Amino acid sequence: MMNNLLSSIEKIVGSPGVLLGEDVTSRSDSWPPTGGCQAKAIIRPASTREVSEVLKLCHTAGQSVVTHGGLTGLVGGARAAEDDIVLSLERMHGMEPVDVINRTVTVEAGVPLQRVHEAAEDVDLLFPLDLGARGSCTIGGNIATNAGGNSVIRYGMIREQVLGVEAVLADGTIISSLNGVIKNNTGYDLKQLFIGSEGTLGIVTRAVLRLRPLPRSCNTALVAIEEFEQVASFLRDMDSALGGTLSAFEVMWNDFYKTIVGDGSKHGTPLSPDQTFYVLVESTGGHEDSDKALFESALEEAFETGLIVDAVIAQSKQQREDLWAIRDDIEGLTKTLFPAIVFDISLGIPQMDGYVNEVRAQMTERWPDSRMVTFGHLGDGNIHLVVTVGSYDPSEVQGVEAIVYEALGQRQGVISAEHGIGLDKRAYLKHSRSEDEIALMKTLKQVLDPKNILNPGKIFAKPEGTQS
Amino acid sequence: MMNNLLSSIEKIVGSPGVLLGEDVTSRSDSWPPTGGCQAKAIIRPASTREVSEVLKLCHTAGQSVVTHGGLTGLVGGARAAEDDIVLSLERMHGMEPVDVINRTVTVEAGVPLQRVHEAAEDVDLLFPLDLGARGSCTIGGNIATNAGGNSVIRYGMIREQVLGVEAVLADGTIISSLNGVIKNNTGYDLKQLFIGSEGTLGIVTRAVLRLRPLPRSCNTALVAIEEFEQVASFLRDMDSALGGTLSAFEVMWNDFYKTIVGDGSKHGTPLSPDQTFYVLVESTGGHEDSDKALFESALEEAFETGLIVDAVIAQSKQQREDLWAIRDDIEGLTKTLFPAIVFDISLGIPQMDGYVNEVRAQMTERWPDSRMVTFGHLGDGNIHLVVTVGSYDPSEVQGVEAIVYEALGQRQGVISAEHGIGLDKRAYLKHSRSEDEIALMKTLKQVLDPKNILNPGKIFAKPEGTQS
Repeated sequence: MMNNLLSSIEKIVGSPGVLLGEDVTSRSDSWPPTGGCQAKAIIRPASTREVSEVLKLCHTAGQSVVTHGGLTGLVGGARAAEDDIVLSLERMHGMEPVDVINRTVTVEAGVPLQRVHEAAEDVDLLFPLDLGARGSCTIGGNIATNAGGNSVIRYGMIREQVLGVEAVLADGTIISSLNGVIKNNTGYDLKQLFIGSEGTLGIVTRAVLRLRPLPRSCNTALVAIEEFEQVASFLRDMDSALGGTLSAFEVMWNDFYKTIVGDGSKHGTPLSPDQTFYVLVESTGGHEDSDKALFESALEEAFETGLIVDAVIAQSKQQREDLWAIRDDIEGLTKTLFPAIVFDISLGIPQMDGYVNEVRAQMTERWPDSRMVTFGHLGDGNIHLVVTVGSYDPSEVQGVEAIVYEALGQRQGVISAEHGIGLDKRAYLKHSRSEDEIALMKTLKQVLDPKNILNPGKIFAKPEGTQS
Repeated sequence: MMNNLLSSIEKIVGSPGVLLGEDVTSRSDSWPPTGGCQAKAIIRPASTREVSEVLKLCHTAGQSVVTHGGLTGLVGGARAAEDDIVLSLERMHGMEPVDVINRTVTVEAGVPLQRVHEAAEDVDLLFPLDLGARGSCTIGGNIATNAGGNSVIRYGMIREQVLGVEAVLADGTIISSLNGVIKNNTGYDLKQLFIGSEGTLGIVTRAVLRLRPLPRSCNTALVAIEEFEQVASFLRDMDSALGGTLSAFEVMWNDFYKTIVGDGSKHGTPLSPDQTFYVLVESTGGHEDSDKALFESALEEAFETGLIVDAVIAQSKQQREDLWAIRDDIEGLTKTLFPAIVFDISLGIPQMDGYVNEVRAQMTERWPDSRMVTFGHLGDGNIHLVVTVGSYDPSEVQGVEAIVYEALGQRQGVISAEHGIGLDKRAYLKHSRSEDEIALMKTLKQVLDPKNILNPGKIFAKPEGTQS
């Protein structure tokens, strides 16, 4: 049975645009997918105009709207309650041809990231944003969450890959800023409002993406290092020696490396597991021979100055993939550390080693049998902690979170480097943001979405007097 | 004589913090400096706390405030009227030591750009923002105007070099987001509000800047090209072949080149002046020998495929500077084209040639003796037009502006690539922004500065019913 609002919406989006009943509950709204979306309907507009018309109705009715992209977020940002409707952009997957001269492509929000990769590569270009969910996640979701991923050290977050955004405000107003130029100082840069605001300030419907040259070379090595200070020096030296071609600098603490490699592991033991740190370092450039020579001479220099104690250089595409498989074996990791609690944090490199040691000591003190492994995009100041205390009991999980976030807040660290806040981290936002910052965020939310209909309760709780 | 407000302000900033009378009128508020600042006082706070206290008083009193940095802006953004007070950040020039591990530096807003360059270079690092005004312009002004300059093709605008900002809102609230990490998805990225908003949404008082490795090599060439399409292909090929080290791609149309070089010119004639386009191309990297080889082989490839017809490669630092002196001889240019009207626009590369030709044709039709030269950072989609019609008569200037901006608006171009809007371009904002975009900008302004005290009348006119 449809109520009046849903009937009016159906007139806009047509009957393929409205899903009800089992078509809703059989879907998921979180990752890993579990089924059981609670929303009263899933609305699937086919154009920006339809999104606008639907939002106008919802705004008038005070109807809350949770926007769905590829549903690969990790912080509950897409979770919907019984009184929400879901607005899915899955039918908006149009893509203009790549503009090879301007090196841009204009896409609708529902286009999966991988389709952009493929379209760019077809014309020898690169869309540098890359993450594990590439086949499912959508450009709209990537923008709404300011996605990071594997190439940030070289190219930055998606914020730096987006030249223009079209978004619909809560009241249906279409803000279309699709110039697609790199330099645009004509008043406030409105697209910044929508990037990373997790669907709470507007719904991104289209974007102009910046493309880069497709690299012609790739050089990869795994190295072992004794001291944290040497890791930081090695990062600085490689970045300097490689002259702009450093494309990955992934650090694994010994606790990570030892968990993944070794006798019986599918990964073997490319370097002996008795060093303190392991770094996967990679460069991509324009010329196969000279880039290889430069990469190898930079590594040799690091040997000679004593920064690294051991190294293996990939000699083939297969060897490269084998090295990356160690860093990417999150499945193996979370199996060994079941039940795992995963953190995605940023802090200054000078604070990092002391921070990790303090957190580990506090964990061990409270849970003598706990385990913690550490790894991450050190070049971006971003590390992941995976912790297990043998239980998912909420009070235990909160105990772990308190240790991790409090030590972080003391060091001006941030509780979410790339995953966002959503529902799951909003209680901890105060460790990374001052009261005045949070108040200003709420002011922006209030003025752009006065009826609080866009993804309400995400990032911060609904205002008092409304349902939380 | 001081009124009550100024007396109260003096209690906060002390007597060195208040300038009156001739100390005000002998100063300038525009560039080139002309003297004659009209403001009723210049207030010079010494700390963020003092800025906050002063703004609290001004907010209560409804007193308008024009913030001054290095006064090198080109759009009248710092101009003050008789009923304004000026808030100059010249006494806030503190700078923390460079953090060489994190590769960041925290500075107060009044620090001149060049001091940041020097501090970074002392420890083998680079702050990549660079522009002609480097000795005078300040980091606060750079951030408030989202400065671009010479290195945008490689490193982006200052927006991409700023990791954290401290700013004071109109009511005195201090928003301090100085984490200094690259990845920070903890709620809305508030610093984006202040970057490029020309002092209308808050006053930037401090920032954490991101530093990069200091390049170890630099290769520079001037090349000649016959067709515009070949210029675009040459950009794409060089960017690809140089694998991330392309650091400048400055294009001069024949009309520019012929005006600057030739018999009797101090620049001589490094390449014959009968080609259609001249490109100054540069790469900076990590290794002197291999970067030189790569640069030369990329140029050879361009010769072989017929993209370029002539080239000269700088063989010394002096030769490099001589080539740049051609591109940078804006003084020589504006002397020849006196009285000059200068434009700073962006548009898609595919539209660029047709646009320039259309504007030139319209100019010639209306002013048969007019002259126009074209050049710019083509790699960023940003070109400059310098036009003379023999007069600075306002109706003539407006006639030129109408031709330039209307043809631009039709192509989704932007009327200000890097200089901003200020006072001088606000009448043309509508050519680059829709009514809904401008309305949203005004909404942000209204909520962040409800009494319209921060740089009123800049970007858009004051609301009706107030002084414009």
